[in-house]
Amino acid sequence: MAEMDKVNFGNLFIQSEMKTDRVWTTVRALTPEIEGKYVWVRARAQTTRKQGNKLCFLELRQDLATVQAVAFGPEIAGFAGNLPDESVVDVYAKVAIPQEKIKACTQLDVELAVEKVFCIGRAASLPLALKDAARNEAECDADPSLVRVGQDVRLDNRVIDLRTVAHQGIFRIQSGVCALFREFLSQNGFQEIHTPKLIGGASEGGADVFRVDYFGGNAFLAQSPQLYKQMALMTDMPRVFEIGPIFRSEKSFTHRHMTEFTGLDLEMTFKDHYHEVLEILDGLFNHIFEGLNKRYSVEIDAIRQQYGFEDLKWKYPCLRLTFKEAIQLLRKRGPGILEQRLGAAKSDYEKGIISAHLQSVKGHDDEDDISTEDEKLLGVIIREDYGEELYIIDKFPKDVRPFYTMADPTDPKWTNAYDVFLRGEEITSGAQRIHDPKMLADKAQSMGIDVSTIQPYVDAFKYGSYPHAGAGIGMERVVMLFLNLPNIRKTSMFPRDPKRLTP
Amino acid sequence: MAEMDKVNFGNLFIQSEMKTDRVWTTVRALTPEIEGKYVWVRARAQTTRKQGNKLCFLELRQDLATVQAVAFGPEIAGFAGNLPDESVVDVYAKVAIPQEKIKACTQLDVELAVEKVFCIGRAASLPLALKDAARNEAECDADPSLVRVGQDVRLDNRVIDLRTVAHQGIFRIQSGVCALFREFLSQNGFQEIHTPKLIGGASEGGADVFRVDYFGGNAFLAQSPQLYKQMALMTDMPRVFEIGPIFRSEKSFTHRHMTEFTGLDLEMTFKDHYHEVLEILDGLFNHIFEGLNKRYSVEIDAIRQQYGFEDLKWKYPCLRLTFKEAIQLLRKRGPGILEQRLGAAKSDYEKGIISAHLQSVKGHDDEDDISTEDEKLLGVIIREDYGEELYIIDKFPKDVRPFYTMADPTDPKWTNAYDVFLRGEEITSGAQRIHDPKMLADKAQSMGIDVSTIQPYVDAFKYGSYPHAGAGIGMERVVMLFLNLPNIRKTSMFPRDPKRLTP
Repeated sequence: MAEMDKVNFGNLFIQSEMKTDRVWTTVRALTPEIEGKYVWVRARAQTTRKQGNKLCFLELRQDLATVQAVAFGPEIAGFAGNLPDESVVDVYAKVAIPQEKIKACTQLDVELAVEKVFCIGRAASLPLALKDAARNEAECDADPSLVRVGQDVRLDNRVIDLRTVAHQGIFRIQSGVCALFREFLSQNGFQEIHTPKLIGGASEGGADVFRVDYFGGNAFLAQSPQLYKQMALMTDMPRVFEIGPIFRSEKSFTHRHMTEFTGLDLEMTFKDHYHEVLEILDGLFNHIFEGLNKRYSVEIDAIRQQYGFEDLKWKYPCLRLTFKEAIQLLRKRGPGILEQRLGAAKSDYEKGIISAHLQSVKGHDDEDDISTEDEKLLGVIIREDYGEELYIIDKFPKDVRPFYTMADPTDPKWTNAYDVFLRGEEITSGAQRIHDPKMLADKAQSMGIDVSTIQPYVDAFKYGSYPHAGAGIGMERVVMLFLNLPNIRKTSMFPRDPKRLTP
Repeated sequence: MAEMDKVNFGNLFIQSEMKTDRVWTTVRALTPEIEGKYVWVRARAQTTRKQGNKLCFLELRQDLATVQAVAFGPEIAGFAGNLPDESVVDVYAKVAIPQEKIKACTQLDVELAVEKVFCIGRAASLPLALKDAARNEAECDADPSLVRVGQDVRLDNRVIDLRTVAHQGIFRIQSGVCALFREFLSQNGFQEIHTPKLIGGASEGGADVFRVDYFGGNAFLAQSPQLYKQMALMTDMPRVFEIGPIFRSEKSFTHRHMTEFTGLDLEMTFKDHYHEVLEILDGLFNHIFEGLNKRYSVEIDAIRQQYGFEDLKWKYPCLRLTFKEAIQLLRKRGPGILEQRLGAAKSDYEKGIISAHLQSVKGHDDEDDISTEDEKLLGVIIREDYGEELYIIDKFPKDVRPFYTMADPTDPKWTNAYDVFLRGEEITSGAQRIHDPKMLADKAQSMGIDVSTIQPYVDAFKYGSYPHAGAGIGMERVVMLFLNLPNIRKTSMFPRDPKRLTP
């Protein structure tokens, strides 16, 4: 690296040979105020353009910012002009004010007059162009001649796909959701825990669970920290949370299912009523959404550029309906909306689907489970009637909830269980849990579960137990629906589904 | 629950039947200042003691605090006296000042004159007594007639074992380590990521990896987020961290190995030299240990009561040695210490072990790998010579590091790799990584790795790469060694080893 002083361009392989006293400037900090200053910048040369023999323009990208750099002189311009797109470069340059604004760059009032340029990471030819990966979705819809990068091509080349400003933004939002989740819960007396992902029994009924070879025997991957977070409460930690992977061996190929995702879990003892937990959840989501809007406006704008979406509409406290009220609303308002859609439908296929849904909505019993299509329709109704896209449905019917769910004290047809919805899709499921060991074992048995496989869990409530409730939040779903993205795979860095284990 | 107004004692099953306006007081808040006030307290009745027909003393425990409660009257004292230890109770009582201090309780200046007591979670008879589980280790050593609860009995009854104040303290420290880790890294521009635990290839050589049934094919459990956190950097996130489970299929039964543990991982691009990462690590550990001492003194004292340990000795910046210097120090100072031990050894067996170690220390080559016993001896030497128990060993020999480790630029016998040690045990391993795709593939191949199994990883560096380095920290080891605990299982809520998958 000593050649940095002697030459003005070339390749540099940084193997920690020496420490230099170079002072680095970020691309974002390149503004007219520092005109005339000499700076070192490390960035990607996202494009280079040679003009004649002696001039080369480089567009440098770092973070969400870009700046134009100009190399002058036959040799240095020749070297710069041959840099493949996306190569990483160290540039030493003087900050200058261009005659005209550089409209293609975020730093439009300055440009860099290059003195030295070293390539420290040379790129091979790209399998997909960044400008295609970053193209606005509506533009693609309007002009079919434009290259549209499919979801699988994106995922196969994820390391390039993630470089677009929208995708960088999505993962900062993801990081923000986790930070805001912890921030709110820590302020409310919750303690962070880590529960095992390798478990001895297929805990929650045995379906959809991955089996692991475990020293000649079997282990299973936890489908949630459910049983363990409840056990933690019985050790006298009054409120706990965990952020960790959730594994589901479901052969689903929908826009919202993955075989591995990140669970934001919480569980707490309460004094009188499980609605104490609903108040925490309501405050939590308000804190997360308010925090995202406040702290991540640059990222939200960048994502909107590519994926155009409307800001989430929510109130605090949010709307709460019982399951029964929700179904009644669906029966009352659903048919009108579906009939309108039926009138606008363009194909017989489409008409058939809407007709079938219309029939099922009209005849939906109060205690029947709610389908994904029903949920979405209900989301439309609630947005129209209440102007809200975040709401809680409480008191689910008993047949659709797991064995550890506490029954409603006044009518065992119903349970003390709830879901939270965002833009018509479920993001959270929770309930008061049974804290009496005998009631718990009886309930498990009545639902066909072999109690011996969950004995340590049942035993956890034998030595003095607290009433408690909790919730599990799908982190990627929160990100997807807050940003109204079309596919959950866009919110997972390296998504997993039954057909995808790479990269 | 309406009977709460009508009766003064009984069992209550809280099914969220009603919301009451009871105002709750914590046990910690029961002080002489509120003498005469009526309070509601929910706590465990950790012991009850009846005196005559009309009097019952209860020791109530909540959090790390205890208080004495007195029930007076034949019926209520009878009910209270029959409560099994560890039952959860709601007590309504008047705060009174006792004639003598209650030495057995943390709230020694007050007691509760019970008006009402309801059992909301009745305990069965306990498989181990809390007072045995909480007994000071030195006391057990001194008096063999005392019950000592073995590690397996503790783990089999983990929900009770975790109720001791020392164990509650350990898991608050654990929660603190994670919070301090994130706090420091967030302040230093790191972004949180979540990488997949289900991976397509047995990434790091294939040994010690768990196999998973994946829809008729195979998946493997990630042994670290190593490859993925590096790939994240190549997507233009300059600094990333992750807290998540690590899976190792090692048939080890030592005090410091588990098959699942929590990894605190970080990875960052650097400008000139990987020592930029060492500076981050040094600052990070200083932040964690300083933060623990400052924020968790109550917990540290509680743990010390049971496990007696000396405060960690460290300096900031911490001591750094090269591997070669460390080995030279070991050869120079090790034999004297071992000879002293040999003189004090009580059995031939012990003498044999020390003699063998002595021989190997004397003949330890500069580039030979360092054994666990060597590491511990070096820890003793460094504490004696420098008064420090936290130090970094840099420049490991190439044969003991993974394929993706960058070689030292001046001598390929050595690498740009380092470990961090705490009280003579490794808590962190890290290195500069190879960021040139060809060098990386060649190195993998030369170490017998089938490059096709890691192709997406190698490809991540093809499209413009940054020099980078990072580290993986074993969270439970940090907790164990900070508190000088004898076994890593004490720092994992539900530990996993080749023989334990429950509870």
